[in-house]
Order: sequence, then C-alpha cells, then structure tokens
Amino acid sequence: MLIIGEKISIIAKKVREAMMNRDPKPIQELAEAQWRAGAHFIDVNTGPAEEKGDELMKWMVEIIQEKVHSPLCLDTTNPVALEAGLKFHNNQWGRALINSTSNEPERFVMLELAAKYNAQVIGLTLGKGGIPADAEERCGIAAEIMARAAEYGVSLEDIFLDPLILQVCTMQDQARHSIKAIKMFQELNDPPMKTVVGLSNISNGVPKTMRSLIDRTYLTLLMYEGLTAAIMNPLDKEIMDVLKTTNVFLGKTLYAHSYLEM
Amino acid sequence: MLIIGEKISIIAKKVREAMMNRDPKPIQELAEAQWRAGAHFIDVNTGPAEEKGDELMKWMVEIIQEKVHSPLCLDTTNPVALEAGLKFHNNQWGRALINSTSNEPERFVMLELAAKYNAQVIGLTLGKGGIPADAEERCGIAAEIMARAAEYGVSLEDIFLDPLILQVCTMQDQARHSIKAIKMFQELNDPPMKTVVGLSNISNGVPKTMRSLIDRTYLTLLMYEGLTAAIMNPLDKEIMDVLKTTNVFLGKTLYAHSYLEM
Repeated sequence: MLIIGEKISIIAKKVREAMMNRDPKPIQELAEAQWRAGAHFIDVNTGPAEEKGDELMKWMVEIIQEKVHSPLCLDTTNPVALEAGLKFHNNQWGRALINSTSNEPERFVMLELAAKYNAQVIGLTLGKGGIPADAEERCGIAAEIMARAAEYGVSLEDIFLDPLILQVCTMQDQARHSIKAIKMFQELNDPPMKTVVGLSNISNGVPKTMRSLIDRTYLTLLMYEGLTAAIMNPLDKEIMDVLKTTNVFLGKTLYAHSYLEM
Repeated sequence: MLIIGEKISIIAKKVREAMMNRDPKPIQELAEAQWRAGAHFIDVNTGPAEEKGDELMKWMVEIIQEKVHSPLCLDTTNPVALEAGLKFHNNQWGRALINSTSNEPERFVMLELAAKYNAQVIGLTLGKGGIPADAEERCGIAAEIMARAAEYGVSLEDIFLDPLILQVCTMQDQARHSIKAIKMFQELNDPPMKTVVGLSNISNGVPKTMRSLIDRTYLTLLMYEGLTAAIMNPLDKEIMDVLKTTNVFLGKTLYAHSYLEM
C-alpha cells in the first residue's frame, strides 16, 4: 500500500509559520522524516492559498524535492497554485498526484490540469448532492468522475478514488459504507480502480488519546478490502506497525521476526 | 463477539502449581479478573490430565463457579475428566462449552458427551489428513463434523467451528486461509454456523514483544468476517481496545467517547 505522508499541512501551526516566513528548514525536515519512515508521496497541503498561492506552492515543491526524492501530492483547492506546483514538480522521482477533483463543477479544472501535466489525481466521491448516503451512492459519483476523466483525457489508471472518510464519532454507519466503497470501487473497472483515503478523518472529533487506535484499526479493515493508498502519518510508529502486520496477513510482506523494523 | 478467557491453563506455571497443590486462590483470582474484564466464558485447560483428571476437573469447575457466574469452556483431551467437569458444571450461568471435538475418531466421544450433558462444543477442523491445506479443506472437514454431530444428536446451533489457527511465522499463507474459512463456515448452514478461534496461536513462535500486536491485528480481520467467539486474553488491554474499536466500526457498539472504558 502506498503511504502519502500528511504532516506538511497548513493546519499545523509550525508548518503554517514556516510557510508564511518562507523558512524551508522545518518543512524539509518533516518531508525527510516522513520519507525515511516509508512515505511514497509527500502531501503538500497549502490550503486555499488564495494570496500568492502559486508562488507559495512553487517554493514548497522546490524546497521539498531538493531534499526528498519522492513525488508529491499537491493539496490545494486553488487551481492557479496547483498549476504552479505541477509546473515545477520533478517527475524524475515519480509523477505528481493532485488532491483532488470531485463531481463538483468547480473541481473539474483539476482534471484539466492532470491531463496537461501528465499527473495522477484523487477523485473524491463528493457531488452536488453533498455527503453520499452509502457505498452505492459513492459508486455512482465515482462513475461520473470516471466519465468526466475520459472527457478530459485522463486515464482511469491515473485516478485514485476516495470514498470520503467521515468522523466515526458522529457518523458511525459511514465507517462501514466507506469500507464497502473501497471494495466496490475496484470493481468499476478492469484493471481495478485505485483507491485512497484521508485516514485520520475517521477519528476527527475524538479525544486525542484515542485517535491513533481508531485510525490504525480502521486502516486494517480498509487494507483488507484492497486499499491502494492512504494519506496518513508515517511518523506514528503504532500505525506503521499495524500497517506492516496487516501486510503480513495479506501476504504482501514475508514474515520475518524483524519485519517491524523494515 | 464472545470472549473465552484463556488464562487458566496448565501451560502457565502459576496455574499448574495451583492445580497440583489444589490451591484455589490463584485460579479463582484469574477467573474473576477475566470475568471482570469482559470474558463470557472461562477456559479451563487441564491438559491431558491423565492421572486423577476427573477429580481435578471437578475441583476446578467447583472452585471457579463458586466465584464467577459464567459458563466454562472445558478444555481437556481426557473424556473422563471432561465428563466430570460437565457433571458438576453449574448451568445456571449458561451452558458449558467443550473444547474440543474434531474429525479424528478418538474425539467423537466429545460429541457423545455434548449430547448427554446438553453442552455446546468446539469443532476443530482437523481430520485424519492432518493440517488442512486451505479454507476449502477446512470446510470439507467442518461438513463431516456437522454430519457426525447430527448422528450423535448435537444441534448445529451448539457447534462452534474452529478453523485451526496456525503460527504466522512459519505458515504465513494459513493466516489468510483461516480468515476465509471463518467466512465460509457461516455459509454452511442457515442460520449461519458459529465460529471460534484460539487467537494466540497466530503468534506462536514470534518474539514476545510482538505477540499482542499480531494477535489484535489478526482479531480485527477475523471479526470483520463475522467471528462468533475467540479464546483470548481479556486481561490484555491493547487487545481489548482493538476489539472494542472494531465493534464500533462493525456497528456492534455505539460510539461514545468513553467506549474503551465500557
């Protein structure tokens, strides 16, 4: 399973300050730490980044890829900022991943950019109707995103479908719907569609001491149903240990007494 | 999911000594601790108990049920000892569970005893051919056990099918076969057959520090496929926390911030 390191986010005060002050060090350190911990992509969440968002994203992409030889997951709702990131993304380390398109018309531009820059793109199964009621509705939205991708010339193999993980503490049934959607998404195409989740959304609103437990237990179930990628915290050793152990049960990793250290 | 507390076992030195000295206190304390921690059954493993096994099992049943108002899982290969246990088992707290019959002729007597004492019985899917190769072979053996149960007058609703959990460190593929068997067993009858595992077998041979992680991650997957009961350690808080969290995702427990304490 692919790990998309979530730590470089405008939500974190330290990261936000480094972004504002254009101080590369804290950001580079977080990128390197996640990469060493096993992240395959580094998420770069600059938020809406309305003012000088393009300049900020260009700077972020350059300082991170100067230190870390991995592709980035460009995470902003601002298409101008996104395009700046794609333009300067070093594809030598892999193709960029756009976070995200959906079935909302204002997000179709992300497909246009994916096609233009040969990037991959996350398709969040959110449509005009708001939060989908169940796995079936998620599949309906996924099919619309897939059709839209074809229109824009984005290959289905470059789309990661995201079932939209909601907080279990207030929307408990949705936890099961999203697991089921991960299974169903794969059946929408042959070869199977790729899937992704924003893992920590499941534990939003939960007391902090319980979040990692909830995240990692949920991850096991999502992986069992074939999840391709997760936006998560690779610096959380307990989550990583569960991920590695689940991979042993799924036969993706050969068991060795030292498998947790690998 | 039903928890069968595994701690009262001849394998543990403290328990073995208490059994030999007929010292009730350490055994009663372990029974009470497991019961308070949420065990629905207390496993009483006296091993082969060849010499005075009947007297030992009778004593165990009496001293445990004097303190703990739960049914017992009587765990011995000695049918004479088993019968003594069944005879003195207090069914006021629920019916006893026999651990176990299988498709080996020397174990058919356990079905006879189940019928005679109106007990439930674990059907270990082990046959004359030794360790089953996969889930399908486990189902074949299960079907033979079910047919044999009918012969002996044991209701299918009183059988807990056990896929035989093997150690992941040397038989990695078997971990998946057993998960699949849990799913398939249920389809062998309507209403679905009940299932059970000896959870910690999965981590036999693994460094001690990794055992709980392996056990609890595996438990999540087994529960997802509908496991009815597990012989496990309810005193391991990390396993219990994962069990409770999995129940939240499966919709068996309503989420509340305090659910781990319940």
